[in-house]
Amino acid sequence: MTPVHAEAEKNIRSVVVNRTPFTVPGFRVAAASTGMRYKERLDLALIAVDPELNARAAGVFTTNRFCAAPVTLCKENLKSARVKAVIINAGIANACTGEEGYKRAKEMARLTADALDFSHREVLVCSTGIIGPQVEIDPISRVMPELVGKLRRDGWEDVARAIMTTDTVPKMANARVEISGKLVTVGGVVKGSGMIAPNMATLIALVCTDAAIQPPILDHWLRWSSSRSFNCITIDGDMSTNDTLLAVASGRAGNPIITDIGSSDSRAFGAALHAVLLELAKMVVMDGEGASKFIEIHVTGAADRDSARTVALAIANSPLVKTAFFGEDANWGRVVAAAGRSGCPLIPEKVALFFDDLCVFRNGTPVPGSEVEEKASRIFKQKEIRVQVDLGTGSAGFTAYTCDLSYDYVKINASYRS
Amino acid sequence: MTPVHAEAEKNIRSVVVNRTPFTVPGFRVAAASTGMRYKERLDLALIAVDPELNARAAGVFTTNRFCAAPVTLCKENLKSARVKAVIINAGIANACTGEEGYKRAKEMARLTADALDFSHREVLVCSTGIIGPQVEIDPISRVMPELVGKLRRDGWEDVARAIMTTDTVPKMANARVEISGKLVTVGGVVKGSGMIAPNMATLIALVCTDAAIQPPILDHWLRWSSSRSFNCITIDGDMSTNDTLLAVASGRAGNPIITDIGSSDSRAFGAALHAVLLELAKMVVMDGEGASKFIEIHVTGAADRDSARTVALAIANSPLVKTAFFGEDANWGRVVAAAGRSGCPLIPEKVALFFDDLCVFRNGTPVPGSEVEEKASRIFKQKEIRVQVDLGTGSAGFTAYTCDLSYDYVKINASYRS
Repeated sequence: MTPVHAEAEKNIRSVVVNRTPFTVPGFRVAAASTGMRYKERLDLALIAVDPELNARAAGVFTTNRFCAAPVTLCKENLKSARVKAVIINAGIANACTGEEGYKRAKEMARLTADALDFSHREVLVCSTGIIGPQVEIDPISRVMPELVGKLRRDGWEDVARAIMTTDTVPKMANARVEISGKLVTVGGVVKGSGMIAPNMATLIALVCTDAAIQPPILDHWLRWSSSRSFNCITIDGDMSTNDTLLAVASGRAGNPIITDIGSSDSRAFGAALHAVLLELAKMVVMDGEGASKFIEIHVTGAADRDSARTVALAIANSPLVKTAFFGEDANWGRVVAAAGRSGCPLIPEKVALFFDDLCVFRNGTPVPGSEVEEKASRIFKQKEIRVQVDLGTGSAGFTAYTCDLSYDYVKINASYRS
Repeated sequence: MTPVHAEAEKNIRSVVVNRTPFTVPGFRVAAASTGMRYKERLDLALIAVDPELNARAAGVFTTNRFCAAPVTLCKENLKSARVKAVIINAGIANACTGEEGYKRAKEMARLTADALDFSHREVLVCSTGIIGPQVEIDPISRVMPELVGKLRRDGWEDVARAIMTTDTVPKMANARVEISGKLVTVGGVVKGSGMIAPNMATLIALVCTDAAIQPPILDHWLRWSSSRSFNCITIDGDMSTNDTLLAVASGRAGNPIITDIGSSDSRAFGAALHAVLLELAKMVVMDGEGASKFIEIHVTGAADRDSARTVALAIANSPLVKTAFFGEDANWGRVVAAAGRSGCPLIPEKVALFFDDLCVFRNGTPVPGSEVEEKASRIFKQKEIRVQVDLGTGSAGFTAYTCDLSYDYVKINASYRS
């Protein structure tokens, strides 16, 4: 970690993040129902930059080889100098849909651009939902006038609702920081729930800010922050064809444009962005399919960050560990076994395992005493549990966030398309 | 694959494998109840080589860094010139038990050796069950006279029962081949059920044969075969601290000792061993925790075997794919998405996906037609389903075996220790 990043990470602690509805100067938003797949619920969201502003954007996308048509289009359109709108539909992912799917993604952009009177190259398109079917253009075309007519500053909760698939709650977070005397807002929405895994843990996340910032700096902070937030969460180890994280900056706050990555303005912005992304990422885990518990896996004392990450994710993705959490069974053996098979060359005798602050395993053996087991059992009844695995060999660390594996995960996913 | 291996693999098809009880000349076996963890069921198995024979053995073990005490002991004792007995307990894994655990594993060997009058270095010890507690010596000591007194040729079904943990059925398989005019038997038992994943997919498997074979040849075939059987199955992607696969050869069949890996005798033995291991491996999957379906994932057309393996296991381990099978939902998108995120550099347009012989995806898009969906739905109602992913880029392949992910998997694993 460079000094700039260390500073940004330290700054996060002073950022206050709220989950309440918000507005971001320079953006108007709206949501509507197309009926494309879901009946009688919002499933199409429009985020429009005020016409007089030239917003900048950055994106991080799925590394799945079967990347969906809207992802391909987003990557292309991010090359434009400016972004005027983002359109997102839920229910149909428009993935694995070939040439026709790509054409339709482009048609979504064109419909949006025509309605707002700018170029389709200035529209970013996201889709989430089932893989295979192509997005339907007619229902989108039909509701577009309504959508544009409804545009307003404070519609973010509707946006958060419209992008949901199996999510049970709308998820949004925002923070404010002062940058060179100007109050800057960072506000974001996310939908997650299934197929949540590194790399790119969520399906669709959109963060808007009124900061004035150069695209490379925005891109830098988005990548840095996603590697420490969305890429640290896992629900089922699967990665979607559509995973997309977008950041759009309207410049409306009027701060001197951020051009230097190492400046204090840059660090303040990075901290605010990261605080919001981390909050959104945690909300995705908490609303994981069937999740009843939120679990933080801290790996410490590693030789390097990659080793720590390997161990943390092996634990976080282990179905045996996750079912033990669901069953409120403080089965530390499964945590240790998952660490042991992770591929990280750890030394068993140096490993220590903690549940919250309770040490349950040290020097290659369980910590003796029936009170340890009793205390561990009490900790496992909590809604939020912190697991720490200290490898005892270095000073690097990594934190993964995950949830338990419940009956409901199976239920939701066994019947998703029906 | 070398010509020797190709020949052995071809020979497998002519090997008849039975799941019926069997005997292996040169071995007597017995099982007893210690009450150590389970009440009123067999939980201790003894496999004894006839005193006048010098049996040879080979083993493949977990690569988990937290390898259990009995695994450490097995590795040491395999260095002995001969093996006289194998002792296996179920219920307590004696893993993560430090020095004391190791002493107790050794004590298990000593008790066995004393009862049968040979050296403790000639005993292989296996344990399976929960991680953490140390194996209890007193109950083993108490039942040892009974165990030795019960030794007989045809007790293999009891052995298969005694090594079970969450297994629902005892699992055994055997085959016979002619080697230089002598009838040779290969008979094995296995317990699996949870923590089943490459590398070393099962907790405990023991294969005995009366073939006369040099240890390096036995070791070679055991490794080759396990890489094509136990290392191709996965239930939950977890790997245990205790995974052990042992092969013991009594030499009682009287065939000319197999010393040349390339000889026809060697290939015939290799084929029989592999046929039995593959059958045992499949039985483990079919009895996977909560499994209701048996799924074969064939990846073909890969550039090399490693790529094929990467794709096959990404699909086989995907909770989203596995819940779709449980829900009888022919959600091909999840299969394609799992292949796409596997890390294998595949070309989406070249990939084809089949359920049994039905092509559902080709040229980067789903095969159109409502009859495709109907047929796929019918296939998903079967108990056994074959998935083929052709990558269209080469001629290498890999087959993985897995099962679905059901409510019962969660149920079993949420309450395992209670």
